[in-house]
This record gives sequence, C-alpha cells and structure tokens, in this order.
Amino acid sequence: MVQQAALDRVFAALADPTRRGILVRLGESPATIGELAEPTGMTLTGMKKHVRVLEDAGLVVTEKVGRSRQCRLGAAPLDEAMAWISFYQRLWARRLDGLDAYFTMRPDPKGPSE
Amino acid sequence: MVQQAALDRVFAALADPTRRGILVRLGESPATIGELAEPTGMTLTGMKKHVRVLEDAGLVVTEKVGRSRQCRLGAAPLDEAMAWISFYQRLWARRLDGLDAYFTMRPDPKGPSE
Repeated sequence: MVQQAALDRVFAALADPTRRGILVRLGESPATIGELAEPTGMTLTGMKKHVRVLEDAGLVVTEKVGRSRQCRLGAAPLDEAMAWISFYQRLWARRLDGLDAYFTMRPDPKGPSE
Repeated sequence: MVQQAALDRVFAALADPTRRGILVRLGESPATIGELAEPTGMTLTGMKKHVRVLEDAGLVVTEKVGRSRQCRLGAAPLDEAMAWISFYQRLWARRLDGLDAYFTMRPDPKGPSE
C-alpha cells in the first residue's frame, strides 16, 4: 500500500531544481555538505536545509564523518512515485483511447476525405 | 530539454494526497468543481485552489460550461517527471552495481563461509 505521507515528501523534495541537482551529483559519488555547496555558490546553511528535505524524504542518507557530514543517495523510495505516475499515465491513455474509439465509431457524413 | 520550472510545478502539484485523488477521479470522467468537492467534504473555494495548482502544472484543464467549471485531465506532462525519476533510478542502480563489484572483487580473508 502506498504511504500517502511518504509520497507527499518524495514529490515535494523533487519539486526544486537545486534538490534534483544534488541527487544527480550524489549519483556520481558521495559528497560532504561543503562539496555540494561549493559549485552552487550556496551557503552551508542553505545547502543543509535542502539536504534535510531530501533526507526526510529518504532520498539521501547522511552520516557524520569527522567534522563534516557525508551525503549519499538513499534507498530509492522513488519506486512508489514512479508507480503513481505510471498509474496516472494509464488513466490518461485510457481517456485518449476513449476519444479514439469515439472518432473511429462515428460515421463521417461526408464519406472518406482525400 | 527538460524545463526545470515545469518540472517544479508538476512535482509540487503531485505532493498532496487531495490533488492526487482529483487526478484519479478525473481519470474516470470529467467533473465539475462541485462534483470534485462533494465526496471530500471540502468547500468549493478549497477545491478551486487545488484545481488551480493542478491546472498551473498542466495536469488538469478546465472550461467554463454554463454556471459551472468542467475539469478534465490535462495533456499528460508527466512524461518529463517519469523520465527524471527513471534517470535517478539508473543513478541508484549504478551505485548498487558499484557496491556489488566492490564485494565481489574483494577477497574474503576467511575463505567462503557456510
């Protein structure tokens, strides 16, 4: 069963280009908050907030290593988000099928056009 | 090319169980704001706000019909959201492949366990 609150958190976490960028960066290799912040010109505090949102959604896992916090990709809770989106796409396809059927079944009063 | 702002709007619109419920309902058939509000016990004003968020994301299209506003599914801008999520899943799979490779290549000093 899909946990609605978990799905809320995943979609909300993905609704920001900086956070999507962090996930792409962590797909390359784990990184500290400082390493994530540096190329963006963002403050450590600002970056920490974004990482926290991703961590709450389970998309990122962090661990204190010495004086810095190491970040890596979390355990892929995107499966449910993907399942939801593909369910919606099936709804949409069915709606289009309905329109197709409507136009196919409707006799053209002018006969076939050129 | 993925439009970041469009992706932001789609993910933000999906980050709410009421709005996901509206999409599922509209997958069955078009409905007025009143018909969408009725089973939820929500006010028309509250429902209008949710529909507006879905409309801004392109997930829902509305049309004034007489005194009510008819809502139907929009033109499926979820393809980009799906593409993004499956890209992230590939990043995650690659990371797991890396771990697999690490444990496979590392000789076990104790030999094979039972």
